[in-house]
Amino acid sequence: ALYRGIENREEVVGKIRSLHTDSLKKLALKCEDLFMAGQKDQLRFGVDSWSDFRLTSDKPCCEAGDAVYYPASYAKDPLNNYAVKICKSKAKESQQYYHSLSIRQSLAINFNIQQDCGHFLAEVPVRLLPWEDPDAPEVEEEEDQEEEEKEPEQKNRDASSNTEASQKDSSSNQGTISKPRSRVVVITREVPYLTVADFVRESAPRHAKSPDLYERQVCLLLLQLCLGLEHLKPYHITHCDLRLENLLLVHSRPGGSSLGSESMEPGPNTACPARLIVSNFSQAKQKSHMVDPEVLRDQSRLAPEIITATQYKKCDEFQTGILIYEMLHLPNPFDENPELKEKEYTRADLPKIPCRSLYSQGLQQLASCLLNPNPSERILISEAKGILQCLLWGPREDLFHALRTSSNPARRDAVLQNWLDIKRTLLMIKFAEKSFDRDCGVILEDWLCCQYLAFATIDSLHRIVRIMQQH
Amino acid sequence: ALYRGIENREEVVGKIRSLHTDSLKKLALKCEDLFMAGQKDQLRFGVDSWSDFRLTSDKPCCEAGDAVYYPASYAKDPLNNYAVKICKSKAKESQQYYHSLSIRQSLAINFNIQQDCGHFLAEVPVRLLPWEDPDAPEVEEEEDQEEEEKEPEQKNRDASSNTEASQKDSSSNQGTISKPRSRVVVITREVPYLTVADFVRESAPRHAKSPDLYERQVCLLLLQLCLGLEHLKPYHITHCDLRLENLLLVHSRPGGSSLGSESMEPGPNTACPARLIVSNFSQAKQKSHMVDPEVLRDQSRLAPEIITATQYKKCDEFQTGILIYEMLHLPNPFDENPELKEKEYTRADLPKIPCRSLYSQGLQQLASCLLNPNPSERILISEAKGILQCLLWGPREDLFHALRTSSNPARRDAVLQNWLDIKRTLLMIKFAEKSFDRDCGVILEDWLCCQYLAFATIDSLHRIVRIMQQH
Repeated sequence: ALYRGIENREEVVGKIRSLHTDSLKKLALKCEDLFMAGQKDQLRFGVDSWSDFRLTSDKPCCEAGDAVYYPASYAKDPLNNYAVKICKSKAKESQQYYHSLSIRQSLAINFNIQQDCGHFLAEVPVRLLPWEDPDAPEVEEEEDQEEEEKEPEQKNRDASSNTEASQKDSSSNQGTISKPRSRVVVITREVPYLTVADFVRESAPRHAKSPDLYERQVCLLLLQLCLGLEHLKPYHITHCDLRLENLLLVHSRPGGSSLGSESMEPGPNTACPARLIVSNFSQAKQKSHMVDPEVLRDQSRLAPEIITATQYKKCDEFQTGILIYEMLHLPNPFDENPELKEKEYTRADLPKIPCRSLYSQGLQQLASCLLNPNPSERILISEAKGILQCLLWGPREDLFHALRTSSNPARRDAVLQNWLDIKRTLLMIKFAEKSFDRDCGVILEDWLCCQYLAFATIDSLHRIVRIMQQH
Repeated sequence: ALYRGIENREEVVGKIRSLHTDSLKKLALKCEDLFMAGQKDQLRFGVDSWSDFRLTSDKPCCEAGDAVYYPASYAKDPLNNYAVKICKSKAKESQQYYHSLSIRQSLAINFNIQQDCGHFLAEVPVRLLPWEDPDAPEVEEEEDQEEEEKEPEQKNRDASSNTEASQKDSSSNQGTISKPRSRVVVITREVPYLTVADFVRESAPRHAKSPDLYERQVCLLLLQLCLGLEHLKPYHITHCDLRLENLLLVHSRPGGSSLGSESMEPGPNTACPARLIVSNFSQAKQKSHMVDPEVLRDQSRLAPEIITATQYKKCDEFQTGILIYEMLHLPNPFDENPELKEKEYTRADLPKIPCRSLYSQGLQQLASCLLNPNPSERILISEAKGILQCLLWGPREDLFHALRTSSNPARRDAVLQNWLDIKRTLLMIKFAEKSFDRDCGVILEDWLCCQYLAFATIDSLHRIVRIMQQH
């Protein structure tokens, strides 16, 4: 069947095109298997598993906005790494965590969304809570504690005894022996090593020295953020608290041979710094499918912008726009200029992003589109994703020019199709050459690029190009 | 530059074609580096290196036509395997080995030609010469020995003392302590594990059970034989003694991580059984470039067929034809029917190869072309290679039909070009998918196929198709 119509050039060209497309879709799936090795099945650790977890260090691997993370091992799965997340909020406020949990549990697993593999309220030694004053009393918590079930706490005391023992030898900053504090503790499979806030802070000199490299990394991180947020949309979930310290960086191949991947990937010189995961869903909103009739009656007399506002529908888009400024070492425009929101600002009122790299102008465009004050004119996360893909892998300015000058739609489609055919060929070649790597040399950026080129169509390309040409 | 002419479909199709072709050429080179890892630089072990070699077993790993092979290690390169080849011929006849050596030393290194990394005349304990009668006296050799230099022998005695010691414990079939025998000993980097004679003998049940698989393996081995023999042509060398026991099988990736490759490759179910190397050049002829004027005078009155005969020009082609019969478990047609050569036989007189697989008919054609009694009509090794490539990877019968019915040469060229474009795309995809293999999954067959498709042209394909259509 493959050779039917072999005399017809057009048929053969179409056949080669569909071979490339199908193969890239297959390769994108193989990438997913590779980068999510073992993480695709939902894990749920019950209370009976806690005693099998041990902190492998009592130095946090990452301090995030809402929690501190410690690397941990699980006796029944010693080859994989885990992290224990200790929430900063007091047990009293733990309903916030259970709120975020209920939202996240309704979601399917996604590469860029933090996964909760189990959680409990535990007595945590103060030395594991570095932000707290060990001498401060915690009287009011005692009561809350009583309400919680006792068993998991008990187990956790056993579990952490190991690290407690080693602590006695190694450190000595414990003048007073403080009472342990009751905190929500979560098991996750993704071990964060930095927040994006840390990454941005550490990268300032690099941004000055290699602006093309750094701003490309920013695009790759923003793209992952969009992929995560896009996943929330069908569930009608809005994160509502997108800030640099709620975005975590994880080594991109945790399951596989950590040797090869760790030495290869997180270096500041590889384009994609790491896997980004969206964390801290404590402010997240989920629009319920069932509309309360009472709410409906209340709403029937409200102006539409107020209902839109309560749905938080394009809130994440807006916050993503702010993150672009912050990741480029610029202040949040609305922090710097609080009266901006009061007046009816336009894109011209937004601060200019300095043109430091190939990507700056495109990021400026994207930020303007995301910070549009009118939610109905604001672009969607899926469109932001498309713009970032286009900035990263093309089509670029030179092609835009050809597209702009061509008024004939058929000719314009032909140009986009030809561009796509060449890009797919180049990506196939790239993968083919990686077949000689000893330890699978496929990196996260390959997956992201493969997703784009495998699923791009003339229409999807055309839509993004049009947005970029309009602004 | 890649996107110039992007509006023109024909230019883009041509661009994708040349991207594929260039990339396959690059992949073929990468394969060469992979499969010849470390073997591309000429090694020459001098007398001073002998003491660093040790036999790692005193059981031969392979018994070939002219020699027996023992696995060996080299102290200065412990990660690579070596083999020690002990020639069967007596020291007295060792000039034969030096003849073959001088021929081989004029050759550049080739994947399918045995490489000699050093050789010497040594005193070999009789237990390492399993084909010899330990009680037989070897008086006449004593004299030869005296003529050889003493030093390397002395060193070798030290070198083999290790295995001699272990021998005492393990075996006991040495009733009489025999005098060591003087033999030519050679160091090679390719450790053979079977001769093709052994392989063919062991494969008889498999040939019956899975004829497609077995006859495909035969094609892959014959192709490697042709690649080796083709390499001899520019040096005007003819092997002249191509028999199953002079063709050795070696694991195809000796240098690399032997774990991965050894467990993957030599299994009887993978298509390409192993790397084939041509050995035993003791009967080889090399046509000298300088023609002795005396010989020229003598030849001036001889009939041309006699001069042709003394040049052995297409002798290897003929012997390859016989090997096809033997590898398919059929007797040599000229052994079975000695009067065949006396009469002026035609292809109709040659025994029929039973049609057991997809490949049988093609192999019959190839054998007939190679056994053509008239050397000027006999096909060249390079053409035999082309026929084998065509049998293995196409174009196949269905396409031949399309080609036969099309009288227009432009249309015929288009069909071949389209076929080549599709096959190249499929091979690129195959390599791309292998990029996910943990331990580089590129196998010898991939290299052989890549060589074919990277360097095939419409003309080369057309030439082979014409030969196959004529017969």
